[in-house]
Amino acid sequence: MKEQSKHEELLHGYIGILSKIQHYREMAGLAHWDMATYAPKEGKGIRSEAIGTLSTEAFKMSVSKEIERLLTELSKEEHFNILPEKYQKSIEKDIKHLEKFQKIPEDQYRDYVILTSKAQNVWEKAKADNDFNTFEPYLEKIVDFNQRMAELLGYEGHPYNALIDRFEEGMTVKKLDTTFSELKEGIQTILRKIQKSSKTPNKRLESVNLPVEKQKILSELVLTKIGYDFDAGRLDESVHPFTIGLNPKDVRVTTRYQENFFKTALFGTIHEGGHGMYEQNIPMELFNTSVGSAASTGMHESQSRFWENVVGRSEAFWKGLLPEFQALFQEEVQDITLEEMVEYINLVEPSTIRVEADELTYSLHIILRYELEKDLIEGKISVKDLPKLWNEKMKEIIGIEPKDNREGVLQDIHWAGGMIGYFPTYALGNLYSVQLTEALKKDIGDFSSHIENQNFALIKEWMVKKVHHRGNLRTAEELIEEITGERLSVKPYLSYLDDKYKKVYQY
Amino acid sequence: MKEQSKHEELLHGYIGILSKIQHYREMAGLAHWDMATYAPKEGKGIRSEAIGTLSTEAFKMSVSKEIERLLTELSKEEHFNILPEKYQKSIEKDIKHLEKFQKIPEDQYRDYVILTSKAQNVWEKAKADNDFNTFEPYLEKIVDFNQRMAELLGYEGHPYNALIDRFEEGMTVKKLDTTFSELKEGIQTILRKIQKSSKTPNKRLESVNLPVEKQKILSELVLTKIGYDFDAGRLDESVHPFTIGLNPKDVRVTTRYQENFFKTALFGTIHEGGHGMYEQNIPMELFNTSVGSAASTGMHESQSRFWENVVGRSEAFWKGLLPEFQALFQEEVQDITLEEMVEYINLVEPSTIRVEADELTYSLHIILRYELEKDLIEGKISVKDLPKLWNEKMKEIIGIEPKDNREGVLQDIHWAGGMIGYFPTYALGNLYSVQLTEALKKDIGDFSSHIENQNFALIKEWMVKKVHHRGNLRTAEELIEEITGERLSVKPYLSYLDDKYKKVYQY
Repeated sequence: MKEQSKHEELLHGYIGILSKIQHYREMAGLAHWDMATYAPKEGKGIRSEAIGTLSTEAFKMSVSKEIERLLTELSKEEHFNILPEKYQKSIEKDIKHLEKFQKIPEDQYRDYVILTSKAQNVWEKAKADNDFNTFEPYLEKIVDFNQRMAELLGYEGHPYNALIDRFEEGMTVKKLDTTFSELKEGIQTILRKIQKSSKTPNKRLESVNLPVEKQKILSELVLTKIGYDFDAGRLDESVHPFTIGLNPKDVRVTTRYQENFFKTALFGTIHEGGHGMYEQNIPMELFNTSVGSAASTGMHESQSRFWENVVGRSEAFWKGLLPEFQALFQEEVQDITLEEMVEYINLVEPSTIRVEADELTYSLHIILRYELEKDLIEGKISVKDLPKLWNEKMKEIIGIEPKDNREGVLQDIHWAGGMIGYFPTYALGNLYSVQLTEALKKDIGDFSSHIENQNFALIKEWMVKKVHHRGNLRTAEELIEEITGERLSVKPYLSYLDDKYKKVYQY
Repeated sequence: MKEQSKHEELLHGYIGILSKIQHYREMAGLAHWDMATYAPKEGKGIRSEAIGTLSTEAFKMSVSKEIERLLTELSKEEHFNILPEKYQKSIEKDIKHLEKFQKIPEDQYRDYVILTSKAQNVWEKAKADNDFNTFEPYLEKIVDFNQRMAELLGYEGHPYNALIDRFEEGMTVKKLDTTFSELKEGIQTILRKIQKSSKTPNKRLESVNLPVEKQKILSELVLTKIGYDFDAGRLDESVHPFTIGLNPKDVRVTTRYQENFFKTALFGTIHEGGHGMYEQNIPMELFNTSVGSAASTGMHESQSRFWENVVGRSEAFWKGLLPEFQALFQEEVQDITLEEMVEYINLVEPSTIRVEADELTYSLHIILRYELEKDLIEGKISVKDLPKLWNEKMKEIIGIEPKDNREGVLQDIHWAGGMIGYFPTYALGNLYSVQLTEALKKDIGDFSSHIENQNFALIKEWMVKKVHHRGNLRTAEELIEEITGERLSVKPYLSYLDDKYKKVYQY
């Protein structure tokens, strides 16, 4: 009886700390969303400090003596063995986190939060002014901190492994080098075929202006169709679209409308909707444990890419949607054909800007960043040489050159935000998305006609059951093997791309 | 040197805790705003818990051993005497808070936060269902907690004094009984004159529908005119309009639009704008001290009432605004005269609902609530008898009877939210607003023509300098005497009302 009640007390204490951490993160997340959407401009400075305070307190709790004590006790056999799996996995994850992050001094953590918050503002201005020099000292500090952090966190092999592990558990430079080399070559091969093809895609839609109000209707329509739950979510506008899961019952996505380029909002919305559905379907019973989140950042990206590209850019999808699109925009676009639309949304035109990249060359942008940040962390290259190296690598990998740093090294916010090790997950998401599609096809039969008939519920439910409901009980590596029977693999993705572009570009 | 650095360290520690408390409250405030405006419906349950956590943590910090140690040290002569006034006053206020609220057990505080959060949901449903019985046990617990809290906080005279002191420092039952008795009699006298008058006000505007989109334009226009700063604020919609000052650079107001009753949104917006300008003009140098807030809830209300009633319902205001109103609504309202408008916005028609009350009878609604809650806390009456007592008192004071509890005892959210002792501040705001107007008139000369000419900047700056900039360095009682040379007084308000209604009703 006494033992039982001690056990209950420990578990209760543990859950108590986890929910408190969740509450702090939820509030910081809400403030983040607010800053990007509705906050009045003058209030943002003070709000950043408040976010800093809450994030730091949440971090402190996650490495506190109190949680250490509870984890030590709960991981003793007599307690651990009688716990449900979700708590066992949660405890294991938290012990791993504790052992690594306890080594980061609290004040350094806070300084870093403040540094990256400031760096994002500096970056924003530097980008607008096309002025790398003002951003350089901030990026140097960020790289320096990440190098030190890698040492503190510990790693085997390359120091970059410590950093990517924060986003993609178990991923390493060794695996990425192999994977990305195969991926790069495969994409470049397809790109050459396209560039040699004599097919000229119809670009009539490029010169069409679609009113923002109608684009909003389209975005909401499509999100509803694919199964995003508006009772547990919202769609708003922000300069940089994002998804934020405050809790499974409050998951918000944003998008960005451009009157003369409807692809931005439409595919951006579907992309974020894919992220959003993942967050909305993490089971409530895992909420307030440390396995109540996505399996990895890459697996998260697999969901957004699946809906955006595999579904949204498919011919089948537009067979189903075109009549509604046509009805909505009958004043702006007349007699658009399925062929025209499919060609337009699958145009391949290498660009210098990642977020404007076509589906094919997108991963090349990621590989470029991966190669640079890996070398930065290793100390092989230095921040001051980045602009030059960036441009050279862009020429080498994608075949074009940025006209300035604004569309070169300054284009992304990630490094300013301290997110080194994050970029690879975008490309991993592409690979996972097609591996999942292959498994899905085996289970549900005629994939294309389900999509054409807008039978998205069936597809969503499969993803919910196979991916979302597992939370973080498995790593992405484990999960992809559990679902598909295969490890991370480049081939399905390359075949998928080749099949698609063969049709569009008739090579 | 050593003493100096100890002094710095203490002050630094003190400011550190205050900013942390501010950050927590700011985040809880943001979540509150979000729940009332944009949060998806399913997320609200979890969000309430997160708000509970943050509020409780902020409370714990405000009564912690750490702040106690710092306050004890800082209030020693050698430290206290060399501090700037703002810190001295802040420390005095915090010591007073600490001495009182340290007596409230932490777990009881949290239970109460959760109780009142639940009670508000129960109340909402009870009101919709016209069912007092389901709400009754919650209200009983709330009254019970407040009775115990009064004992813990301590008081002289009536236990209700401990409760109102939280909103209006130094206010007592003794003062309120005298003030409210004079106020009630004065208002009833005017009401009788109006009811005997043979003048029938023109009510053409009552049957006019104004599109919500245009009402929004009007609301924004008027807020901008009177000096509300949209770079440090927002205007949104919510079921119950409110103002929330997250920090002086982020102060948000909400309003509510009714197509067939434009007075709701227009005067509601101006009202909240008055609150909002107070919050926006608390000086940044007082921010992160405990005197960086309004002097009292009543003084806050003086600002909203001043702009809503003294300015917004005046003839001079409409002399200035009518052409713009007419231009905006030319399709909906033709040839409206100044007289018509002034009569319509100053109609006196006793109603059972406080928030729909006219300016004259509004304070009677407050006095009714004051008399009931005072007796509840004293234990003279019990919760179960409230519906009956409410209706009797309504008949006695305002002369009409609610047709059910929905428009009787269930109409307000305040008691469900635990805010016992709050209601009187609404009526005090009315009194202060006119006392301030008298002082303002002495300083700026021809008040009416400034208003007619929309010279609101002059008026706002006077309020900023005299009221807002003082933060909470003075109590409301001290401040009103400092500004007007008089203590709280009923006479100016009654004369103001009599002057106005004499014209409108020609008695």
